[in-house]
Amino acid sequence: MPHAFPAHHFSLRRFAGMTAVAMGCALSAAISPVSAAEISHDPAMAKVITAQHDEMIGRLRDWIALPTIAAEGLNIQEGAQMMASVLQDAGFQRTKIVPTSGSPSVFGYLDAGAARTISVYFMYDVKQYEAEKWTKPPLAGELVSRDGLGDVMLARGAINTKGPQMAFLAALHAYKKANKLPPVNIALIAEGEEEVGSAHLAEALADAEVKRYLEQSIGMFYCSAAQSLDGFVSVDLGSKGMIEVELTANGANGIGPAHDIHSGYAAVADSPVWHLVKALSSMTNEDGTKVTIDGWYDNVRQPSAREQQLIDLRTQELDEQLMKQDFGIQRWIAGVDYRTALDRMANAPTANIEGIFGGYTGEGGKTILPSAATAKMDFRLVPDQTADEAKTKLKAHLKAHGFGDIEVKVSGGLDPSQTAEDAALTQALLAQLNARGIPYSLDPRNPTSGPTYLFTDKLFSLPFVSVGLGLGGRYHVPDEFYLINSTNPKVAGFDEVTGFYVDLLEDVAKRAL
Amino acid sequence: MPHAFPAHHFSLRRFAGMTAVAMGCALSAAISPVSAAEISHDPAMAKVITAQHDEMIGRLRDWIALPTIAAEGLNIQEGAQMMASVLQDAGFQRTKIVPTSGSPSVFGYLDAGAARTISVYFMYDVKQYEAEKWTKPPLAGELVSRDGLGDVMLARGAINTKGPQMAFLAALHAYKKANKLPPVNIALIAEGEEEVGSAHLAEALADAEVKRYLEQSIGMFYCSAAQSLDGFVSVDLGSKGMIEVELTANGANGIGPAHDIHSGYAAVADSPVWHLVKALSSMTNEDGTKVTIDGWYDNVRQPSAREQQLIDLRTQELDEQLMKQDFGIQRWIAGVDYRTALDRMANAPTANIEGIFGGYTGEGGKTILPSAATAKMDFRLVPDQTADEAKTKLKAHLKAHGFGDIEVKVSGGLDPSQTAEDAALTQALLAQLNARGIPYSLDPRNPTSGPTYLFTDKLFSLPFVSVGLGLGGRYHVPDEFYLINSTNPKVAGFDEVTGFYVDLLEDVAKRAL
Repeated sequence: MPHAFPAHHFSLRRFAGMTAVAMGCALSAAISPVSAAEISHDPAMAKVITAQHDEMIGRLRDWIALPTIAAEGLNIQEGAQMMASVLQDAGFQRTKIVPTSGSPSVFGYLDAGAARTISVYFMYDVKQYEAEKWTKPPLAGELVSRDGLGDVMLARGAINTKGPQMAFLAALHAYKKANKLPPVNIALIAEGEEEVGSAHLAEALADAEVKRYLEQSIGMFYCSAAQSLDGFVSVDLGSKGMIEVELTANGANGIGPAHDIHSGYAAVADSPVWHLVKALSSMTNEDGTKVTIDGWYDNVRQPSAREQQLIDLRTQELDEQLMKQDFGIQRWIAGVDYRTALDRMANAPTANIEGIFGGYTGEGGKTILPSAATAKMDFRLVPDQTADEAKTKLKAHLKAHGFGDIEVKVSGGLDPSQTAEDAALTQALLAQLNARGIPYSLDPRNPTSGPTYLFTDKLFSLPFVSVGLGLGGRYHVPDEFYLINSTNPKVAGFDEVTGFYVDLLEDVAKRAL
Repeated sequence: MPHAFPAHHFSLRRFAGMTAVAMGCALSAAISPVSAAEISHDPAMAKVITAQHDEMIGRLRDWIALPTIAAEGLNIQEGAQMMASVLQDAGFQRTKIVPTSGSPSVFGYLDAGAARTISVYFMYDVKQYEAEKWTKPPLAGELVSRDGLGDVMLARGAINTKGPQMAFLAALHAYKKANKLPPVNIALIAEGEEEVGSAHLAEALADAEVKRYLEQSIGMFYCSAAQSLDGFVSVDLGSKGMIEVELTANGANGIGPAHDIHSGYAAVADSPVWHLVKALSSMTNEDGTKVTIDGWYDNVRQPSAREQQLIDLRTQELDEQLMKQDFGIQRWIAGVDYRTALDRMANAPTANIEGIFGGYTGEGGKTILPSAATAKMDFRLVPDQTADEAKTKLKAHLKAHGFGDIEVKVSGGLDPSQTAEDAALTQALLAQLNARGIPYSLDPRNPTSGPTYLFTDKLFSLPFVSVGLGLGGRYHVPDEFYLINSTNPKVAGFDEVTGFYVDLLEDVAKRAL
């Protein structure tokens, strides 16, 4: 039976409009559940993990109680300092607050005296919250019972991302408690501005010490929790790049009136709204399946045979009707078939209008010719497109087609990223999923975007692997939650995730490179 | 020296975005001013008019004190009753409140025992007002002094349109005071919903008595006041038609998601915003100078040689730079020359976007694919297009081009109107302007729209002539004003307008048909 489409786990900041898909809804065919006794392959470690459960949930609560919110300038320094001490508690001997021109990042190094080093990406900031819209205080970390799931923690940061990160740190605590060192050294970088676009992360990554340790590592883990109710996870081998732009046609720039005028004068005055509509229209083909900006596909590489094979597999693995239902759509774009849709999800550059506005937007009509109109857009990019290339080509296209007066405000730029399927970290993850009988699908590229490319391509050449075990939801909105004590045998709770990390690290330490 | 572009005086409801042009700013070459002694060609009538000045301003104040606001349901019946008594006071022997399915209209007939009947259009409603934004109480009708103009009355309804209408009624009062009957019979129809679109006026015009009297008349006057500071007026021989529509692309209709989704899914889901943009783009050519809706020009008649000649004249008469300055534009649409612009103003159908909105419109970006987008549009029509034809063709075009799912909400429909230059009422107006040395220009068609076509084409075949003597401004906004006592020799005050009406009626009574 095909699975529900998994939530894309990285860069959840970009997921403000996330659909119900985050919760999944399919129930899979019978698969071996992870029993309590099988928290880890190592029964002794499993025992430690179970024993430290309450302590770890307490640590998670303490962390949640101090929200760092970059957009509000809230607890920036305090959050960085707490991040450092949270790492120290977990066994990191070296921690360092790395200043940037924005919020500082926090670096940590756990020297296990091991042959191998892995790196881990953390974020210590959370999204804003409106406490009055929550059913529980958003900083208290209370547990509530959920049918079919178990006890979930309701809190800002529960799933995004303190909960999953604490489940990882709990694995390191378990090693400490067992008087053992982890089987790999761990270099960890935690940023404090993920929710506002990771604009200064590259500065922290340029720090010589950070750079040295990350370069030594064999790959990077990201702690997410994105199982469906049937346990299914998606393992992404990449993510799309993105630029975000705001285009404004303004009469003050020479095309149209400098102030709103009566619409009768549309006969004689250029309309900034029409000008914007025509500029937008020049950027895609009629049915929206192609970006028609000059030279847009110059550097788009063809999907490999393996990537095509993965799309074939996903066509079988993922439930088409459930996916359509989650998206609220009656057909795939322009009526394409399911395989084409999944191929596009991984491989198609997109031009999207996030919002558009101009002129009179109230009730009824108002006979004006507006002096300005704005469109907010995002463009998703695939290998080997780059954000810089996209910005340049967009501006050149507008200029070449008579829209040079349109103001272009670029507010974000992320390159696509790619991680090899045969990387040790990827293979270790798949092996541990297989060992637990957890259903998964390999996704050549997830359609969202994040700073991953900094690690995979731009500043480093690290495999970047997101570990999606566990479950949570309501990212960025009230009653954000993370599953702590699972009563669903197909879905991992906090301790199962911790045990999974122990086994994963052991696997990584031994796996052939 | 060319004149400032005149305000279009009819259907000021449509003029919410009216520019500073309403005030004009040019000073013309020297022309003979209308002196106090020349209020009317008839010195005795001039004397009566001067003597009754205070009484008339008092009557105007009384009328202003009772605002009828259709949008608020304010003083509908009270306003209609007052309209009837205002007419009775001016000598109308017959008045009748004519119910409609909206606000009632008021009919009045002044039987002068004359051979000829003229009809007059009135509106007794006014636009909403926010008293706290006014410098004077909006219903008190206080006079304030304005440099270069004289005393103006600040009030809601001062210029739009109780002031100019009272100046006309004052002419009838003057006849009464002089113990004379006017030289023509007068059939007057006053509507109470001009400010909300005249939707039920046709019902009142279908009343048998109203119909009979209007059919007997030789033409209809409208009382406006649209002189520039240099005294210049535009005499319109027609107005454009219009339909107003709201187009909504909604994922719920099958193209796009039923709710906002993450913009990463733009790869696989249709976008209602793109769908709307493409639909809009299909309606005009690249530079916005042509409507490209299928068959749009089928019934557009070519301008006559006389109309072309009038455009040539206006190219000389109207100041290009002042007009551009008033509109706040740096060039004419698509860079056309001035004559082409004036030709388009009279003769080009237009497709205008009044407003557009959809998706995220706040600060920064939000990576969503919005589920819906809306554009508010107006289309101006020229002879022999009709509103019904335009609605049909718009819908057919959308359907034929793959946009049949887009919701089309039509909120208004007005046909173009045309009045013959050689109509007696037109000629009488021009003769009286000439007699006073008032500069004017004949406009083949003004680019705004109103219910005029009901009188000129749809229900009657009456010449419709707007008498633009006098000056006012700030239609629909705080501190609306109307010039009462003019100190500017080029611009008529209240009494001069009244005297002008006396002479105009005398002229109409004698002029060859």
